[in-house]
Amino acid sequence: MQKIGIGLLGLGTVGSGVVTALSCNRQEIRGKLKAELEIRRILVRDPGKARPVEVARDLLTTDFGQIAADPSIQIVVDAMGGTDPARQYILAALAKGKHVVTANKEVVAKYGREILAEAEKHGTGFCFEASVGGGIPVIRPLKESLAADKVEEVLGIINGTTNYILSKMASEGKEFNLTLQEAQEKGYAEPDPTNDVEGFDAAYKLAILTALAFGTPVKFEDISFEGIRRIAREDMAWASELGYVIKLVAAAKERESGLEAWVSPCLLPLEHPLAQVNDVFNGILIKGNLAGELLFTGRGAGGLPTASAVAADIMAVAQKVLTGQAAGPVCTCYRAKPVLPKEEVTGRYYLRVKVKKGDAALPVNNLLIQERIGALPVAKKFQQGKGGTLVYFTQPLQAGTASRAAAKLGMIPGVQEVSLLRLEGLPAAAAWAAATGK
Amino acid sequence: MQKIGIGLLGLGTVGSGVVTALSCNRQEIRGKLKAELEIRRILVRDPGKARPVEVARDLLTTDFGQIAADPSIQIVVDAMGGTDPARQYILAALAKGKHVVTANKEVVAKYGREILAEAEKHGTGFCFEASVGGGIPVIRPLKESLAADKVEEVLGIINGTTNYILSKMASEGKEFNLTLQEAQEKGYAEPDPTNDVEGFDAAYKLAILTALAFGTPVKFEDISFEGIRRIAREDMAWASELGYVIKLVAAAKERESGLEAWVSPCLLPLEHPLAQVNDVFNGILIKGNLAGELLFTGRGAGGLPTASAVAADIMAVAQKVLTGQAAGPVCTCYRAKPVLPKEEVTGRYYLRVKVKKGDAALPVNNLLIQERIGALPVAKKFQQGKGGTLVYFTQPLQAGTASRAAAKLGMIPGVQEVSLLRLEGLPAAAAWAAATGK
Repeated sequence: MQKIGIGLLGLGTVGSGVVTALSCNRQEIRGKLKAELEIRRILVRDPGKARPVEVARDLLTTDFGQIAADPSIQIVVDAMGGTDPARQYILAALAKGKHVVTANKEVVAKYGREILAEAEKHGTGFCFEASVGGGIPVIRPLKESLAADKVEEVLGIINGTTNYILSKMASEGKEFNLTLQEAQEKGYAEPDPTNDVEGFDAAYKLAILTALAFGTPVKFEDISFEGIRRIAREDMAWASELGYVIKLVAAAKERESGLEAWVSPCLLPLEHPLAQVNDVFNGILIKGNLAGELLFTGRGAGGLPTASAVAADIMAVAQKVLTGQAAGPVCTCYRAKPVLPKEEVTGRYYLRVKVKKGDAALPVNNLLIQERIGALPVAKKFQQGKGGTLVYFTQPLQAGTASRAAAKLGMIPGVQEVSLLRLEGLPAAAAWAAATGK
Repeated sequence: MQKIGIGLLGLGTVGSGVVTALSCNRQEIRGKLKAELEIRRILVRDPGKARPVEVARDLLTTDFGQIAADPSIQIVVDAMGGTDPARQYILAALAKGKHVVTANKEVVAKYGREILAEAEKHGTGFCFEASVGGGIPVIRPLKESLAADKVEEVLGIINGTTNYILSKMASEGKEFNLTLQEAQEKGYAEPDPTNDVEGFDAAYKLAILTALAFGTPVKFEDISFEGIRRIAREDMAWASELGYVIKLVAAAKERESGLEAWVSPCLLPLEHPLAQVNDVFNGILIKGNLAGELLFTGRGAGGLPTASAVAADIMAVAQKVLTGQAAGPVCTCYRAKPVLPKEEVTGRYYLRVKVKKGDAALPVNNLLIQERIGALPVAKKFQQGKGGTLVYFTQPLQAGTASRAAAKLGMIPGVQEVSLLRLEGLPAAAAWAAATGK
């Protein structure tokens, strides 16, 4: 039986998952592929380190050159993080005529175009299903299954760590910091949680999804993103009281003037399909002009789910190795549609204003009128003779307008706190009226 | 720009959807494919009939031979129903070296193996994404995205008509016959509803899913199926009271001795991911040993959603036409695993027994003990001095055992009615205990 050699870069969670996947499903893979996949080298930083899987010591190397130079390695699998040296290794492998499979969202988001061009030049494959949504098939469905659709919108919960934290905040009523700490203790958040909690991870993934969904090159710098640090317990409670949940949503939408592409905490109505996606699960909602709304949910992270996607990509390129076919065109961009600047993104908002005294409510309302913010009061809670809270849902506003108004509200004497959050999943006027009773 | 010719068989809901899809998304398709898709002939029975779309009269033909003989037609799209003459047309097109794309679940379920063998012989493509789940990508994800997984289980709601009827029965408390009639008036059910209501449609789709998920040939006759006609209003009400919904579930599971593959109405706990799939929507839950549980939901029928899948398949084979590559191996079967006989399928059951008098309850319990049916009483409703209802959830039973016991229960004097329904989505003992309080 023909053998296909793999060079694996990295032996952390994903790399170990790939080793386990190829070994425990060896029989199925061999049956389907009619060939054997063999890991011939594994690049690690420290060969002496303890690993989650057992591998023969002589497979390990600290020198990428050994992988690049090995003609028996036809497929290189990038299971590292970060862009440096991942980008150089990927480019070097492609230049040697090797196929590359990666789970590395950052390198695809930042250097995908360059890498795809290099792959096309050499007729090799570059696959990155595992870079978004872990084990959830989404890259291939977007590229192939929705090839004939005009995608109108992508809405996703694509970071498991923040979804876990927000789910726990909602169900247990705890504050962000405490919940983060618990997530770290359970291994759901990294010791340095910046990448997840500040929205970088979701933004990398969204850049990839946006480019594929709309067939246009997207620069990572064009994605506006915000994490979940500022989500207050009060906002969680108000959302729940009003029939909403707060999720970190990644959104990409086609507008006439350009594309919206942003990651932001949002209120979603409880009936929204993504509102039911809890804990570490991911969910991606894609709206095509033919297919309608499609929802994909599953485990968006973890060694084995990610390895499921990596191994499927390996099998796809292995098929090319076996048939000797070139990998074919890999870049799906066919037009240039700009991403709208952050300030021009339009949407509804949830606005919570905490005032020290009841008489601050009047200037708040006046300022909203003066700034021409269509805002429906949806809740109000005041203690007799003391301050309280006003909650509004706004009509569609440009993000710039909304944040300027929020800043001005914050400067009104007697206003203690202003919280402004996006309100998603209420596209139709009818739904809006039903939700607010207006 | 290169042109690729299409011969379309049928101009009903799906055929018209394909015409609309290719025309309204012409620009996107051209951009991505770098070629033009052109419908060159449409096979219809009656060229004079009014159609949902406008097409040039000279495209219409009643003679398949005109399509088969036209060398400018490289792709044949089967948008007909039934197996005769669809099967012959497909085989003839493949023999002429044409690629075939179909939305016809019956022909794939019954003759898929024969057709795939013919396609492999001629190096042409045979694609059938649209045959299951309408616009929901599921064939390609199973074949490609989960290629490296061992699939353990597929659970689906894959018939929109029955899901619509069951959803309405649940939300409006109406009887089956009345709800069916309303669905027919709204166009959600056919004038002759047999194909949907008796489970044929779901069984065709399940045969296809099972073969792909488990990499083994599946004969349509091996699928056991049952429709929703016998679902009583009382069962709907009891399910709801106990925290469950009744859905027509298509299931395929790997067991040591063989595969389970059946379509049956089932009680699902409200928390089950498929319990939220309502109205005409479809949902397919796939459990892979690497990916974990994946759920795909969307519109499982209708002209445009189905056309989304057809058009994506057309683009995939068009790519082969453009590059001159052979379509590659199309059959994904790599082993022979038998489908278990209906009677040997094991699962839990909901059992409702209506008795005329309270003193019939004792012989019911005695019979369950005598037949060694582990059955937990979960609800009971009796009118003072009159008859009433006993509801049980059973421990896992073979289907044969369960139906024999139900038949015996029905013969007990004083027993008025026995209803036996599968109970799905409670795999773990812990979940079972939580659900029943035992």
